Amino acid sequence: MADAAVIPAPQDTSPAPVRREVGVTELALRDAHQSLMATRMALEDMVGACEDIDAAGYWSVECWGGATYDACIRFLNEDPWVRLRTFRELMPNSRLQMLLRGQNLLGYRHYSDDVVNRFVEKSAANGMDVYRVFDALNDTRNVREAIAAVRRVGKHAQGTLCYTESPLHTIEGYVAQAHELMELGCDSLCIKDMAALLRPQPAFDLVRAIKEGVGEDVRVHVHCHATTGVTLVSLMKAIEAGADVVDTAISSVSMGPGHNPTESLVEMLAGTGFTTHLDDERLRRVKDHFARVRPRYTEFMSAITGVETEIFSSQIPGGMISNMESQLRQQGAGDRLREVLAEVPRVREAAGFPPLVTPSSQIVGTQAVFNVLMGPYKVLTAEFADLMLGYYGQTLGERNPKIVAMARAQTKKEPIDVRPADLLAPEWDGLVAATADLDGADGSDEDVLTHAMFPGVAPGFLAQRHEGPRNVGRDPGELAAERLAREAGDGPSTAPVHYSVTLDGKAHQVAVQRV
Amino acid sequence: MADAAVIPAPQDTSPAPVRREVGVTELALRDAHQSLMATRMALEDMVGACEDIDAAGYWSVECWGGATYDACIRFLNEDPWVRLRTFRELMPNSRLQMLLRGQNLLGYRHYSDDVVNRFVEKSAANGMDVYRVFDALNDTRNVREAIAAVRRVGKHAQGTLCYTESPLHTIEGYVAQAHELMELGCDSLCIKDMAALLRPQPAFDLVRAIKEGVGEDVRVHVHCHATTGVTLVSLMKAIEAGADVVDTAISSVSMGPGHNPTESLVEMLAGTGFTTHLDDERLRRVKDHFARVRPRYTEFMSAITGVETEIFSSQIPGGMISNMESQLRQQGAGDRLREVLAEVPRVREAAGFPPLVTPSSQIVGTQAVFNVLMGPYKVLTAEFADLMLGYYGQTLGERNPKIVAMARAQTKKEPIDVRPADLLAPEWDGLVAATADLDGADGSDEDVLTHAMFPGVAPGFLAQRHEGPRNVGRDPGELAAERLAREAGDGPSTAPVHYSVTLDGKAHQVAVQRV
Repeated sequence: MADAAVIPAPQDTSPAPVRREVGVTELALRDAHQSLMATRMALEDMVGACEDIDAAGYWSVECWGGATYDACIRFLNEDPWVRLRTFRELMPNSRLQMLLRGQNLLGYRHYSDDVVNRFVEKSAANGMDVYRVFDALNDTRNVREAIAAVRRVGKHAQGTLCYTESPLHTIEGYVAQAHELMELGCDSLCIKDMAALLRPQPAFDLVRAIKEGVGEDVRVHVHCHATTGVTLVSLMKAIEAGADVVDTAISSVSMGPGHNPTESLVEMLAGTGFTTHLDDERLRRVKDHFARVRPRYTEFMSAITGVETEIFSSQIPGGMISNMESQLRQQGAGDRLREVLAEVPRVREAAGFPPLVTPSSQIVGTQAVFNVLMGPYKVLTAEFADLMLGYYGQTLGERNPKIVAMARAQTKKEPIDVRPADLLAPEWDGLVAATADLDGADGSDEDVLTHAMFPGVAPGFLAQRHEGPRNVGRDPGELAAERLAREAGDGPSTAPVHYSVTLDGKAHQVAVQRV
Repeated sequence: MADAAVIPAPQDTSPAPVRREVGVTELALRDAHQSLMATRMALEDMVGACEDIDAAGYWSVECWGGATYDACIRFLNEDPWVRLRTFRELMPNSRLQMLLRGQNLLGYRHYSDDVVNRFVEKSAANGMDVYRVFDALNDTRNVREAIAAVRRVGKHAQGTLCYTESPLHTIEGYVAQAHELMELGCDSLCIKDMAALLRPQPAFDLVRAIKEGVGEDVRVHVHCHATTGVTLVSLMKAIEAGADVVDTAISSVSMGPGHNPTESLVEMLAGTGFTTHLDDERLRRVKDHFARVRPRYTEFMSAITGVETEIFSSQIPGGMISNMESQLRQQGAGDRLREVLAEVPRVREAAGFPPLVTPSSQIVGTQAVFNVLMGPYKVLTAEFADLMLGYYGQTLGERNPKIVAMARAQTKKEPIDVRPADLLAPEWDGLVAATADLDGADGSDEDVLTHAMFPGVAPGFLAQRHEGPRNVGRDPGELAAERLAREAGDGPSTAPVHYSVTLDGKAHQVAVQRV
């Protein structure tokens, strides 16, 4: 019999010239499971893929960020620093990459500059290589200190343009921001499209404009979510325009509110002259690994699984819509989602057209929920008031003066226009002192940082840390067996149930217990 | 408060010139539910979308084909001709389109030319406008009669290139086939990518080569499945190369083994100068309609929901893999799928590299299963033997002479190289006579055609037709209630459950069984 047929594509008869190698950042270990399964994946379920990821030929491996850190200590009883060191050890040949919220670090408030510096030093010492630094408002003053800190420790500083659309957002504006970021000393730039809004033509135009306006040798990375179904085309156009690296997730943890599949990117480029040099067999093994792991997290999976193009008008990142639905349901208003989605663009305009990404997406989204449930701006959330008063930084558009006045009246705070962190005194020593007494704290700077970032959750975590990780994934076979048993009435023993049973006219006291 | 913000994309500041309008064929009514939910959607669940589909601005609406016809009479007790006439009535402004298997019509064997002509006449009379005519082997002799018949009734004849890849398939070969099809009198051509193998660069090259080689004014349609995650990019490249019409499915019945979402196509083209002129609000309503309908067919949904790039080597259309899995499971060999997938390219090579599409996909796939389970070619299926002997037509490559000899020995049939239908005597009159006696047959040519196409199923259908359609969709609320009832022990008869019952202080051992 014939051997396995080798089947080249038709274009192989006249191969295109090799034009350029495109780098790939693999998202499976961070943003993929954050977007698809509420960041619940345990380190234990990732280590088995690390050898193949390390050898596959990625430009970098994204594996750490605010949500993974938060989920580690809140749900998994896992020390995020152990996770980082484990990745470092298991992937010695890879650039490890993280997402850093500028002056917010991994938390939800601004930190003083000394804390920002300490965080960068410690994460670099524990193995981090590439820092993608962003600010939700695209206010470069909020990323300045973090970028300087990354440069000081000799690591890769990547400046970020959070992509959004509004009457005020223009290609020229993004190029100006790109200039500012490069002047801060960035090693590369990222176009971050967290809501899958970056259509192909704007992707091409934006990458080209940055290359032409800031420099052809400026490294441009492109990060897109897949929610709207259109962004693999955007990656193609970005590559044609000169993008150096694009972000994807291995297919078994891709699509929906997640990302475009790594393997599809590879196939997309066949015959184009662009290559990734990724190792197909390694990719297949990584895919198989996560195909086995994924069913363990079914109960955490996003309800959004298909393509959703209506977010082109609401601009809300896929992951946020389910949050809003749950907020509305808690208020008994689960049927008012469409009203809220229509309100979001209005709130965003009133706030000066911020991009919608953590934390601005939550702040604008929650205010939109309040507006729908209680009437427009009858109640301002504390965070929305701070946003209106400049405590998160500058927005591109003017903030509605009437609502700024309401925020001022409600909070008794004055509007500011300085860099928010300029108002903060150094706080590291105070944080060290406040952490020292915590039950289970080991005196390390890492524990201080955990406490600084998540003051509500850290004490409980540190106290329980010795119990070791809790894997919240569930074996699908076990889950199925449980369901089957329930259906067959053959469940576990239960507590006795008490009945009063009248039999042939006589009442009996009966206790029934499954045994 | 501000009105809803109008948010143009950044590129709107320097709009691209309008270059060209691209037509769209909507697949929701045929291939979408065929690929996603085993063709089970009832007419009743489609009529509500027809007004919006009719007004949305599509180039055509695909709504009929072999599998829909088959499912109508086999599962839904629905007359496929009534379905066609209903669509005609509900979508008076639309081109209705069907998929026709050349000389096989909607069945699995070759029919004599008089039957082919009668089928085309009757379907045109019942409302069909556009006939996409294909042959699984790309043997143009097998589509000649059907194309001539479509021309005779004054309808739109579309010739089809079934896209596949092999060492023998070249752009030049496809252009030659395109020439042949245009010489048969086709009004347009379709590149049919049933397995999602058409990568972006070959898509561009193929469309461009056809336009340059056959004529810039030759209408080229492109049909891609979405299974490999890469084909929306292929549609972009095909459009850039000059494609006139592309096929998509409304987002709520898209992706997986189905197709790229219509709305994503619209968004993809924003700012490019290519437009679709589809009506966004109509699309939203069509989407909402099928989002409501889809959960009714959960139990028929394809197990493949994500992206699958391994089919680039096996070339098996997404829908077929689940068929194979079920064949293997029936033989207690559910664990041997990977071996079968590796065997398929070998069987395909032995058969002269046919494209894999109905019926060649089933024939090659089943032989691959037999080879794995019983050893290579120990048993030939009757269909595979016929394929090897030329009874389905010509293949591009030479068929393995050793296996041809085995087929000859097994079947006592001689190899042929004429057009298979040349060996068939006229059969219409015989079919009329054979149908006349069937219980429930109404004497119409339509009933004769139903009997001709599905002789095993038609008698039962005709006898039961008066009972009216059976909608096999299930209300999701009803399904959930049923499950809940089962879990609460309120289901069908079960095995006995053992309790300890304490009655007036005395413990009893009790077994309870639902009867």
